[in-house]
Amino acid sequence: MFSYSQNDFYCEHVALADLAHQVGTPAYVYSATAILDNYRAYATAFGDLPHTVCYAVKANSSLGVLSLLAKAGAGFDIVSGGELFRVLRAGGDPGKVVFSGVGKTRDEVDYALRSGIHSFNCESEAELALIDALAARLGAKVGFSIRVNPDVDAVTHPYISTGLSQHKFGIAIADAEAVYQRSRQYRSLAAEGVSCHIGSQILDPSPLIEALDKVLALAARLREQGHPIRHLDLGGGLGVAYHEGEKAPDIAAYVECLRSRVRESGLAVMVEPGRSIVGPAGVLLTRVLYRKRNGAKEFIVVDAAMNDLIRPSLYRAHHEIVPLRRTPLPPVKADVVGPVCETGDFLARDREMPNAMPGDYLAVRTAGAYGFVLSSNYNSRPRAPEVLVEGDTWRVIREREVYEDLIRGESL
Amino acid sequence: MFSYSQNDFYCEHVALADLAHQVGTPAYVYSATAILDNYRAYATAFGDLPHTVCYAVKANSSLGVLSLLAKAGAGFDIVSGGELFRVLRAGGDPGKVVFSGVGKTRDEVDYALRSGIHSFNCESEAELALIDALAARLGAKVGFSIRVNPDVDAVTHPYISTGLSQHKFGIAIADAEAVYQRSRQYRSLAAEGVSCHIGSQILDPSPLIEALDKVLALAARLREQGHPIRHLDLGGGLGVAYHEGEKAPDIAAYVECLRSRVRESGLAVMVEPGRSIVGPAGVLLTRVLYRKRNGAKEFIVVDAAMNDLIRPSLYRAHHEIVPLRRTPLPPVKADVVGPVCETGDFLARDREMPNAMPGDYLAVRTAGAYGFVLSSNYNSRPRAPEVLVEGDTWRVIREREVYEDLIRGESL
Repeated sequence: MFSYSQNDFYCEHVALADLAHQVGTPAYVYSATAILDNYRAYATAFGDLPHTVCYAVKANSSLGVLSLLAKAGAGFDIVSGGELFRVLRAGGDPGKVVFSGVGKTRDEVDYALRSGIHSFNCESEAELALIDALAARLGAKVGFSIRVNPDVDAVTHPYISTGLSQHKFGIAIADAEAVYQRSRQYRSLAAEGVSCHIGSQILDPSPLIEALDKVLALAARLREQGHPIRHLDLGGGLGVAYHEGEKAPDIAAYVECLRSRVRESGLAVMVEPGRSIVGPAGVLLTRVLYRKRNGAKEFIVVDAAMNDLIRPSLYRAHHEIVPLRRTPLPPVKADVVGPVCETGDFLARDREMPNAMPGDYLAVRTAGAYGFVLSSNYNSRPRAPEVLVEGDTWRVIREREVYEDLIRGESL
Repeated sequence: MFSYSQNDFYCEHVALADLAHQVGTPAYVYSATAILDNYRAYATAFGDLPHTVCYAVKANSSLGVLSLLAKAGAGFDIVSGGELFRVLRAGGDPGKVVFSGVGKTRDEVDYALRSGIHSFNCESEAELALIDALAARLGAKVGFSIRVNPDVDAVTHPYISTGLSQHKFGIAIADAEAVYQRSRQYRSLAAEGVSCHIGSQILDPSPLIEALDKVLALAARLREQGHPIRHLDLGGGLGVAYHEGEKAPDIAAYVECLRSRVRESGLAVMVEPGRSIVGPAGVLLTRVLYRKRNGAKEFIVVDAAMNDLIRPSLYRAHHEIVPLRRTPLPPVKADVVGPVCETGDFLARDREMPNAMPGDYLAVRTAGAYGFVLSSNYNSRPRAPEVLVEGDTWRVIREREVYEDLIRGESL
């Protein structure tokens, strides 16, 4: 959905240089068509297998994005009360919401129960006890899955690998049967599924399949023991192509692989994709402020910074950076850096870059996931706006912050 | 200003467990007395040497903190228009403001000129040209310093080391004379000072002194060449003790060292301390949600997360974590982790920790600098409140965000 026509970079049918000129920079821009295409790649590939594609809200929680997905029939994977609030505001169906996360608070569990979410992915026995107690108080009965830790190496950045035994997530798969057994004491809980999630930005799906096989075997044993397991929640994790020429795993092929393995079990399947739905569907637009050279190093100083997109700094992530208008100038080896006062503020280092001059616009690609949601007001910088493109139209789905927003709730 | 009385942890004369109970967690708490003491340690040590202590707003930009420092007579080092806005709202004197940073925009420069700030620390020749043009339009004349890059290794985390030639900051010291020479063409600028800043969290001040000597020699040459240099801006950089038993450099001894070297020159001195003023003056309060064990690993799951304090994840920073109420339980080797759904969400890893149980409160120490300012709404978590303690009283200087705050400015 992002491509050049002549020398202008487009999102769908919108020339991004025109959009940047009107909205200003920095700004996040998402393609509605790309988001829906990616979502449908999952939903369609499941075919007649009972399934729910629960979009992982944490990747991009903008109401405009959630609303698109809700209308398309998506479920939602949430990890906080704030995410539930967003899903409900966006018109999402609480009956298709699963609540994951190691640190659910009492207030959040209560809010989720009152909202009638589908089920909880539970990460500890203490959490089961808490949910049961709060559900009992409401006279409710709620489904749960134990998030099992399959001890599978997702082969990704250590910060987003979650399925090894030394991680905080889940319950060791070897202990899971005993936990399900003990959960029978909880009268307000129903053992509805088994869940796992081994990490994010996984480019080779084989660890995902390895985890699936372990979880499928566990589910079979649990059903033999009389637990009414109806679904497997296989989490998210499918990676996207951040590097030029990199190949992301094919969504349909991955789902087909899940389908063929699960079909015989009669279980329904949930998946929780986030990055693979919104990541490639977004760019961060920025404008060159200065060019400078320090010794042998060339710098392109732009108006987007680590407070806008922290992935390069936090995860050493790579994002392609392209000009909104191609010029005949040869590329230049440079660092692309922002105005924030630390060396950790960079978008690219020592890379062949478009030879952009002050005033020129650039797009930081594949910024739709873990972009805006991780943004901060560091250096007292107002947060960027978010724009949704649909065909040849676009609209601001989150306004640019102004200085007054910085001090909201403060007093001397 | 933080210490135990009996078994309760106090900030000044306020028992923090009581405060946490009233305000909720997570919450940042700052000691006004500690902030002022640290500021005065700088101001007093300069004695009769003309000086301005320009507090580095980026470390902690809360209006309540800025207001305290403004009343005590501090100047301010800003790096954005948003920080200038904050300083003015807090009652700071624009005549004591210096504006640093590699990416000043046209609007920010204009705002600073109209506000009558003291001077600009300039990082490139293009910036000089921009400031001159905008000042001319306003009929103003404004002071500037060139931020020189002295190519001195600050021996700190690579993200916060800024004085090497491969960094984006400043102009190489070898080129500075030529730049000052060319700056004579700008009729609305006055070469008022020389500035440098080699990094942050520096525990051995000798690189700071090495940089000073280079800058002092440069200033002498510039004055010989007829530039009306009146001040040196030596930046910030003095570290604080993050580890138990670590020794932070003594502020008075450092300033005395500067003073003895600068005195003969007749120059005024500016310094830009941030972390060393507010860092040790703040804590982040949090509460234990769950205890869990995965294999051999013990986890203390708390309600503060990487969105509240990203330093451990971003800089691999160490913060001491102490109980608000000491118990006789032996310590436990554990990870302290938050509710955010990634492995990078941790406050401490594999450390001897207070054996805190669900419901118990903990304080993450030395969190007054680069804590709240780097916080985000990641995982749709409302940002924590900030509380200022003065003696036996306290007040909320920034309210806890609520769910409605998360979606401000958004539409479907």
